[in-house]
Amino acid sequence: MVQGELIVKGQRAKTAARRLAFISTAIKNEALLEIARGLEHDQAAILAANALDLAAGREAGLSEAMLDRLLLNPKRLAGMAADVRSVVILPDPVGETFEMRTLANGLQVGKKRVPVGVLGVIYESRPNVTIDISTLCLKSGNAVILRGGKEARHSNLALADLVIRACNAAGIPEGAVQLVESSDRALIGEMLRANGLIDMIIPRGGADLHHYCIENASIPVITGGIGVCHIYIDREVDLEKAANIIYNAKVQRPSVCNAMDTLLVHRDVAARFLPMAAGRWASAVVEMRCDPRSLDILQGGAGSEPHTPGPTAGEHWKIRPASEEDFGKEFLSLVASIRVVDSMDEALDHIYRYGTQHSEAILTEDYHAAMRFLNEVDASAVFVNASTRFNDGGQFGLGAEVAISTQKLHARGPMGLKELTTYKWIVLGDGQVRP
Amino acid sequence: MVQGELIVKGQRAKTAARRLAFISTAIKNEALLEIARGLEHDQAAILAANALDLAAGREAGLSEAMLDRLLLNPKRLAGMAADVRSVVILPDPVGETFEMRTLANGLQVGKKRVPVGVLGVIYESRPNVTIDISTLCLKSGNAVILRGGKEARHSNLALADLVIRACNAAGIPEGAVQLVESSDRALIGEMLRANGLIDMIIPRGGADLHHYCIENASIPVITGGIGVCHIYIDREVDLEKAANIIYNAKVQRPSVCNAMDTLLVHRDVAARFLPMAAGRWASAVVEMRCDPRSLDILQGGAGSEPHTPGPTAGEHWKIRPASEEDFGKEFLSLVASIRVVDSMDEALDHIYRYGTQHSEAILTEDYHAAMRFLNEVDASAVFVNASTRFNDGGQFGLGAEVAISTQKLHARGPMGLKELTTYKWIVLGDGQVRP
Repeated sequence: MVQGELIVKGQRAKTAARRLAFISTAIKNEALLEIARGLEHDQAAILAANALDLAAGREAGLSEAMLDRLLLNPKRLAGMAADVRSVVILPDPVGETFEMRTLANGLQVGKKRVPVGVLGVIYESRPNVTIDISTLCLKSGNAVILRGGKEARHSNLALADLVIRACNAAGIPEGAVQLVESSDRALIGEMLRANGLIDMIIPRGGADLHHYCIENASIPVITGGIGVCHIYIDREVDLEKAANIIYNAKVQRPSVCNAMDTLLVHRDVAARFLPMAAGRWASAVVEMRCDPRSLDILQGGAGSEPHTPGPTAGEHWKIRPASEEDFGKEFLSLVASIRVVDSMDEALDHIYRYGTQHSEAILTEDYHAAMRFLNEVDASAVFVNASTRFNDGGQFGLGAEVAISTQKLHARGPMGLKELTTYKWIVLGDGQVRP
Repeated sequence: MVQGELIVKGQRAKTAARRLAFISTAIKNEALLEIARGLEHDQAAILAANALDLAAGREAGLSEAMLDRLLLNPKRLAGMAADVRSVVILPDPVGETFEMRTLANGLQVGKKRVPVGVLGVIYESRPNVTIDISTLCLKSGNAVILRGGKEARHSNLALADLVIRACNAAGIPEGAVQLVESSDRALIGEMLRANGLIDMIIPRGGADLHHYCIENASIPVITGGIGVCHIYIDREVDLEKAANIIYNAKVQRPSVCNAMDTLLVHRDVAARFLPMAAGRWASAVVEMRCDPRSLDILQGGAGSEPHTPGPTAGEHWKIRPASEEDFGKEFLSLVASIRVVDSMDEALDHIYRYGTQHSEAILTEDYHAAMRFLNEVDASAVFVNASTRFNDGGQFGLGAEVAISTQKLHARGPMGLKELTTYKWIVLGDGQVRP
């Protein structure tokens, strides 16, 4: 049941979206530049609001990691302003006409790219998301209703206020960007069933939020965010490259969805590769949860070879046996599960069974193996000889991203400006009728 | 709660889909050709099954129109075979690599087109849909679970049996095409919540079925089928062309979603155009439900001009006043509502308020008006000087269509083979790691 705040904001958003759909790129860019300027010049007000959230967070006993996610400071605000400016220089996706052709009857038929309409974005504690999403929605001609985390309430209000003032100054229709003020969780449920007011819901958060949205939404939801990511070390591997990649995929930023969770190693290279991996990971104190064969190798057992090295002096390998739950698990921390496989088929079956279709990689110098992996693995991004950490809108050249979709419809993988659009068919005739 | 028949079929479909995703075009085409041959050579068995449905339908008191939708005969089977062969010659959408580029770090990044996976299609009485959908799903590499109408049960079983035998003969994985046998309506509810087994639901039917799916599905649904279609007659119109088009849009096949429902006429041309329209429509006995101004003109009242003609001898204009419900109504019959508008803005507002974003047309010789309508009207297809009846996969050159989507995500308008696919990002590296 949609009511109160949401019905008012939904109707304002819908009205705004109708005009926003064909407003000029110049006006949209002017609003974005004004947001960037605001982030630089209105720092005092934003940081004062942020201080209220931080104080409340400390009082509520939030962890240091959580407080860090909440934190804004001049450097972070400058970074946010730079991100906004990087969206200004991206091409406007709206209005592109494509696949246009002339049919035998003389009709010219093709597609024209248009905004989706009104987006609902539900997110958690990071206040910079308020700016990211507003910016991408404005540039792609969508109206947006933002529902941020309760703990960032004051920061989000200050940032949304800045965005709204920038929109007004540039001539963007009123209601293009709105922040839901109620912190009642029931409002999320209302958003998910606001058919006719919201066209698409993007949840940004953990597995629970995504599942809640899938179960309860009657409007389309872009799901994602959960990445159980595998790297398969093929028998024909360049060991040095592979050790670099698995180090990067696990250690460079372990708390995110495209970090590696499970290492699958072909048995022919396991005795040589696993000690290299363990040596690299030891420097970052990565915990390795090992299947029996990899455990045996890393402990210098029968599966190891005479030349299999153990830890060097002072090096500590953090090893423990894996339980069944360690496969198919998103660790989001410096933990990896390891399994030795007999063949590529076994690796493909493992990924099919345990993967979440997020990011999957093969490391190999064998052409056939690379092609087969690319063909047969179904995920939002499939990698050959590269770190899974590249599954990211910025890294893929989209300039910015709203979310990473792991569903199959509409958009898959990083969602940038284009993924916030749809198309309409356009047909130019001269009196044609259907026979 | 997914159980019994659906869980078994869902798992078989999922297993089939995994292999079907990268099976060769040659095998898929061979299966299609075998289906076409079967439709020609197994007519006796199919027509015998169809006779059972027709007999049961007569007994249940189905209307002649319903019985006609159920009916198969040698000519219809030959037409179905020809349709299957037309899908054979369409290019296979799967495997296309696009937007591939090399980034500064040397990574080659792009997209590869892949099937969606397992589709669930819920349809009503026409048994030919069983063949249409099976054919399009096979060609696009998707597994499909079909749930046809109870009244076509025997026909659908015979046709599905033919499809399955053709698939087996060609080497398509078992479980690629399956027909749900239970006629329990609860099974539709199960299909809509079969997350993890079905990737996309396509309902083909009336408004009730679509609403039921939207309300109850936890997996993505492609909605559509409801078309309240407007044609706006601009002041700068070619009257002859316009009369042809509105005749075609209303009369050529009134029972379908892309037929015109409401005629909006600019006041400057209403007195000249409405009698022309009435004259053309009179030959097909189209009932006109008129707003006060159009009623006045057609009745030769004050709004008409001295030269406004009335019906010619023997011509009967079927006129009655429109009620408010006649606007925003999908008539699906030889009925049209008519409204005179003061301006293009009023026409745009009317379409925004009453339209279902299906098919909308402007008839004009004015460049600016045409461009404005194309820009500002949001619908699956927007037409200038052509009949709304062209909003169709075959007419747009897609070769065939599964459905017409009126939602905004994933696909809009006619859905052909490509719209049954998605993409995965593919990344070819040489050891790159993320800085």
